[in-house]
Amino acid sequence: MKALRFENGELKISGVRMPDEPSEALVRVTRSGICNTDLEIVRGYAGFQGTIGHEFVGIVEASPGRRELEGKRVVGEINVGCGKCELCSAGDSRHCAARTVLGIHGRDGAHAEFLTLPARNLIEVPEEVSDEEAVFVEPLAAAISIAEQVEIGPDTKVAIIGDGKLGLLCAMALSLQSENLVLIGKHTPKLSIARRCGIEAIMTAEAAKMHRRFDVAVEASGSESGFAAALDVVRPRGKIVLKSTFQGRPKWEAWRVVVDEITIIGSRCGLFAPAIELLASKRIRVGGLISDEFALKDGVAAVSRASENGVLKVTLRMQD
Amino acid sequence: MKALRFENGELKISGVRMPDEPSEALVRVTRSGICNTDLEIVRGYAGFQGTIGHEFVGIVEASPGRRELEGKRVVGEINVGCGKCELCSAGDSRHCAARTVLGIHGRDGAHAEFLTLPARNLIEVPEEVSDEEAVFVEPLAAAISIAEQVEIGPDTKVAIIGDGKLGLLCAMALSLQSENLVLIGKHTPKLSIARRCGIEAIMTAEAAKMHRRFDVAVEASGSESGFAAALDVVRPRGKIVLKSTFQGRPKWEAWRVVVDEITIIGSRCGLFAPAIELLASKRIRVGGLISDEFALKDGVAAVSRASENGVLKVTLRMQD
Repeated sequence: MKALRFENGELKISGVRMPDEPSEALVRVTRSGICNTDLEIVRGYAGFQGTIGHEFVGIVEASPGRRELEGKRVVGEINVGCGKCELCSAGDSRHCAARTVLGIHGRDGAHAEFLTLPARNLIEVPEEVSDEEAVFVEPLAAAISIAEQVEIGPDTKVAIIGDGKLGLLCAMALSLQSENLVLIGKHTPKLSIARRCGIEAIMTAEAAKMHRRFDVAVEASGSESGFAAALDVVRPRGKIVLKSTFQGRPKWEAWRVVVDEITIIGSRCGLFAPAIELLASKRIRVGGLISDEFALKDGVAAVSRASENGVLKVTLRMQD
Repeated sequence: MKALRFENGELKISGVRMPDEPSEALVRVTRSGICNTDLEIVRGYAGFQGTIGHEFVGIVEASPGRRELEGKRVVGEINVGCGKCELCSAGDSRHCAARTVLGIHGRDGAHAEFLTLPARNLIEVPEEVSDEEAVFVEPLAAAISIAEQVEIGPDTKVAIIGDGKLGLLCAMALSLQSENLVLIGKHTPKLSIARRCGIEAIMTAEAAKMHRRFDVAVEASGSESGFAAALDVVRPRGKIVLKSTFQGRPKWEAWRVVVDEITIIGSRCGLFAPAIELLASKRIRVGGLISDEFALKDGVAAVSRASENGVLKVTLRMQD
C-alpha cells in the first residue's frame, strides 16, 4: 500500500506492506488532514520515523474485538496506552509513559491507505458529518478540551493568540461558551474567516491596547512571541492555556508569571464525542478552514503546500 | 537616618532624611532580613533605585490612622495598592498595576532606621515571636501561600526544588500538610538542616530516579535548571508552583508542558496572619536558617555575605 513516510530526514511516498496487527482494528483511510505537528515532525520534532498523520476518517475493514464496527465509518483517538500501568488502569492512557501515538510516536500514522488502532480507540461518525468535516474531529476535540480544563462562562474574557487553523478552531469552539472572545493574529485573510463566524478578530499590533485585560489567554501559535503576547494580555491571576506544540526551547519571562501569579495550563488532546456532536449539529462549521485537497500520491506536495504562509487545512484523499 | 540604598548601580549606607508620609504609619525598624530579591535588585533586577529591603520587624512610632498601633511591635505587608482601581476595590492590592512595593518598586524599603507603610498593612507581632523570628514572617507567608493555591493533603507527593532559604521554608511549611515531601538540592549542609526538621532531603543527582513521580513540584531555586528539574519530577497532569523570582528570560521546554498537560502556578506573596501563628505556636522553627547578623552600618558587607554560596538568612539589626 502507499504511505507518506518520513525516514532518515526525507519525506516521500513509499510502497509498504499492509499493517498486520491482529489484535487491532484495520481501517481503510478515506481522508486525512495535515496538522502543524506533521510539519514539525518533518522538521525533526520528536524524532519520529515512519508514516506521519493522525487526523483521519476511514472505514473499518476488520475489527476482531468489536465486530459491530466492521463496515462503519470512524475516526480514532490517537493515543494508545500500554494498558497495564497506573495511568492506563485509571483510564488515562493519553499520559501513559509507554504509550504510542498515531503518526507521532512509535506507531505508523494516517497518511496511508490503511492503518491499525485498537478497536476501543475508534468512534463511529454519523452521516450528518462529511468526510471533509470528520478530518477536523481530532483538532476540534483538542480545542474543546480547553473548556474542560478552564471554566469559561459567557462573561469570561478570552483571547486566542494565533490565527492558524488551531487558533481558528479554538476561537470557534470557545465562542460557543464566551461572549467576550477576541482572536489575535497576523493574517488579514485568516482574521476575516473568524469575522465571518461572528468572532471579533484583531491584528497583533492592536492587542497592545489590551494589556492585562483577559481572564484567559489561549496560546495557539506555538511561538515565543505568541507566549509573550499571552503574558501581555492576561490579567493578574489570570490563566494562559498552552495549546500548541512548541519547537525547541523558547525563552520566557518566568518572573512575570510569578509576580502576576499567572496560571499556565498545558492542553493537548480532547474527547472525540463532543467534537463529533458539534460538527453533526452544525454548531461548528469547518468548511472555511480547508485550503486544499491532494491525492495521497501527491502527499509530499501537500505537506509543502501546508507549510506555506497563509494556508489553512490541507487534506489528503486516498482513493485515487 | 541611616539607610542601605542602591542608587546609580552602587550599594551603600547613606544618611537620608526621615521618611515623611503623614498619611502612613511611621515604623522604627528593629531588624530586617536580606532576601534573594534584594540580591537580584543589586544585580539590576526590576530597575529599583532607593532603600532596599522588605522583610522587617519594628515598633510603630506614629500611626495617625490607627492610634492603637502606636508603640506596638509589628511586621508589614509589602504591597501598597492605589486604593482606587478595580483590583484594589476587590481587595487585591497585591496585583494593582499602580502598586508600590516596599524596597522593590517605587517605595523605600526596610534596611533603614525608619520606614513608612499604610497602617492597614501592619500586623502586631505576639510576644511569643522573637524579632529574629518575625523577620521570617514575610517569606514564610509566601511559602504558606502555596497551600492556598494548590490542594495539598497528607498523600500528595510534593517535591521542593532548591535548598536555599525559600526552598527550606517551603519544605517546612508544606511538610505540615504532606507526609510525602522531598527537598531536592545541591548543598549538603542545607539538606542537613531540612533533615534535622524531619524532612526527606536528597541531592539533585538522586532526583533523576524520581522521574514523573510527584503530584506537585515547587520551583524555589529561580534557575533555568531548577525549572527543568521540576518538569522531570512532576507527573503528567501534575502541578509546578513557580515560587522564586527568575532573573532575565530563561529557556524552557514548553512542549513538555503541553504534551504532559502540566499546570504551572505563579506564586508570590502570602497572608501574614497564618505565618505569625505558625511561628508563635513553634510549629515552624526558623532558628536554623539564620547564618549571620550584621549592624545596619555594615549593610554592604551583609549583602555581600548573603550572596556567598551556602549562606542562608542574613539579618540586620538597627540599634547600633
